[in-house]
Amino acid sequence: MSKSIAIIGLGLIGGSMAMALQGFEDHEVVGVDVSQPTLRFAAENHVADRVTSDAEQALRQADIVFLCLHPQGIVDFLAEHRDHFRPGALVTDVCGVKTAIVEAAQVLPPEVEFIGGHPMAGTEFSGVQNALRHMFRDAHYIIVPDENSSPEKVALLERMAAYIGCSDVVRTTPRQHDAIIAYTSQMMHIIAVSVCDDPQLFEFMGFEGDSFRGCTRVAALDVPLWTQLFSLNADALDQALERLEQNIGAYRSALRCADRSVLAQKLEYSSARKRAMNREEEKRKRPG
Amino acid sequence: MSKSIAIIGLGLIGGSMAMALQGFEDHEVVGVDVSQPTLRFAAENHVADRVTSDAEQALRQADIVFLCLHPQGIVDFLAEHRDHFRPGALVTDVCGVKTAIVEAAQVLPPEVEFIGGHPMAGTEFSGVQNALRHMFRDAHYIIVPDENSSPEKVALLERMAAYIGCSDVVRTTPRQHDAIIAYTSQMMHIIAVSVCDDPQLFEFMGFEGDSFRGCTRVAALDVPLWTQLFSLNADALDQALERLEQNIGAYRSALRCADRSVLAQKLEYSSARKRAMNREEEKRKRPG
Repeated sequence: MSKSIAIIGLGLIGGSMAMALQGFEDHEVVGVDVSQPTLRFAAENHVADRVTSDAEQALRQADIVFLCLHPQGIVDFLAEHRDHFRPGALVTDVCGVKTAIVEAAQVLPPEVEFIGGHPMAGTEFSGVQNALRHMFRDAHYIIVPDENSSPEKVALLERMAAYIGCSDVVRTTPRQHDAIIAYTSQMMHIIAVSVCDDPQLFEFMGFEGDSFRGCTRVAALDVPLWTQLFSLNADALDQALERLEQNIGAYRSALRCADRSVLAQKLEYSSARKRAMNREEEKRKRPG
Repeated sequence: MSKSIAIIGLGLIGGSMAMALQGFEDHEVVGVDVSQPTLRFAAENHVADRVTSDAEQALRQADIVFLCLHPQGIVDFLAEHRDHFRPGALVTDVCGVKTAIVEAAQVLPPEVEFIGGHPMAGTEFSGVQNALRHMFRDAHYIIVPDENSSPEKVALLERMAAYIGCSDVVRTTPRQHDAIIAYTSQMMHIIAVSVCDDPQLFEFMGFEGDSFRGCTRVAALDVPLWTQLFSLNADALDQALERLEQNIGAYRSALRCADRSVLAQKLEYSSARKRAMNREEEKRKRPG
């Protein structure tokens, strides 16, 4: 293998990325981590073609670098290793916020190209032992190239997204990404933890169905990671939550209304939107 | 087969129940519906051992009756057919509210025994064509016997719940059932439709992950059914939603707090509750 991909951070996503990228276009996948137990697990389970704790050496050889640390970890890593990247390398990340990361990547020298990314996949678990080779299957892969991004590097990122099984690659700006993700992902996590804060959670156990499981699965979240993700996107998230409170409030009003047709009309409106969304998703899955 | 189970209403749940109960303890499963297309589909797909539109005749022969209509449909059916049930029969239902149904069952003559039930399973679809033989696998089955319920009939209901694959049978009162279900099920549906009411739903499509899908799946709900379920349990549901709004509000305050440890502590609290709940569920699944 003549080329090298360095995966920095073999956690849930980094480990999954390392597994999924093995065999991509004649690249060796090198897993980098500071934790010896993580490296040992990764080596024993062939999470990467090769593993090392020497980030500097891995970076000097890498044609492609995936930063798979927590947000603050990525910011710190970029500052510490700014001069260790190989000229001409593509550097990307997998972080759930983009504005803060793209800003931090400004420290990189001009001969290194950074394009932020966010494969929309994950589970409520963490750590390399929970990594999955098929983590990214059918997931959306968001990228935030800017006007200086080279078409070759964008195309390379797109080929990797396809290789790991993503359904599509969506381009947007860091700011727009963060506004969207506040709604489509972060708000779902705040809903899940808020539902679990109900004083009667344990008393009511044994009465939950799939709707409860689907809504609250992500409540068992990685606290340090999500504290960073929420904090780095607090304004957009707060706005999404304000809209949610208004929409729940409107349903509460309809519930209190003696005329059942008010509630029926609201449910007709909302459920029609969801069904329309389902149809759109089906269409995207079956092109042509 | 010497005994008979009548399934009244071959919709999503009735159709699934008819399929799942086939072969239970020497009973013939008779599917009853007013819709000719439904009966034709059910006959062609062997949803029941036999299908008929003659409810009266089916009731006169039935040792066990499952009422699988919408809530108002059950209330009306009980009033219309009160004198057609076989003496000694067990009559039960599968409805998501219990107080209103148990009250309506007061019209039955004393020689017919009614025990309300609620198998906690379903999908966002409706109709016999979406019925599933394994709908109830690993689901909780809630029953609301009262002080007059005979142990034999309760035991019969429990054997059927086990036969169709339920993980356990939970006993409670109609009022407690409705308070619990307002939280564990109905609130999840109000959350899902409220999330889908966001003005940016369609604009933000292509950026949703499994957390969004898990939370909003049930938004594509059966409007007439859920209008009835919500309306028949409006007070308890409104109280659950009020608690949710308070819990979301507390997270919004933490988000606005400059000190990140406030948010981290809240996330630690909530996620620990969810993890504790997951452990409890695991324990229940693996008894002994």
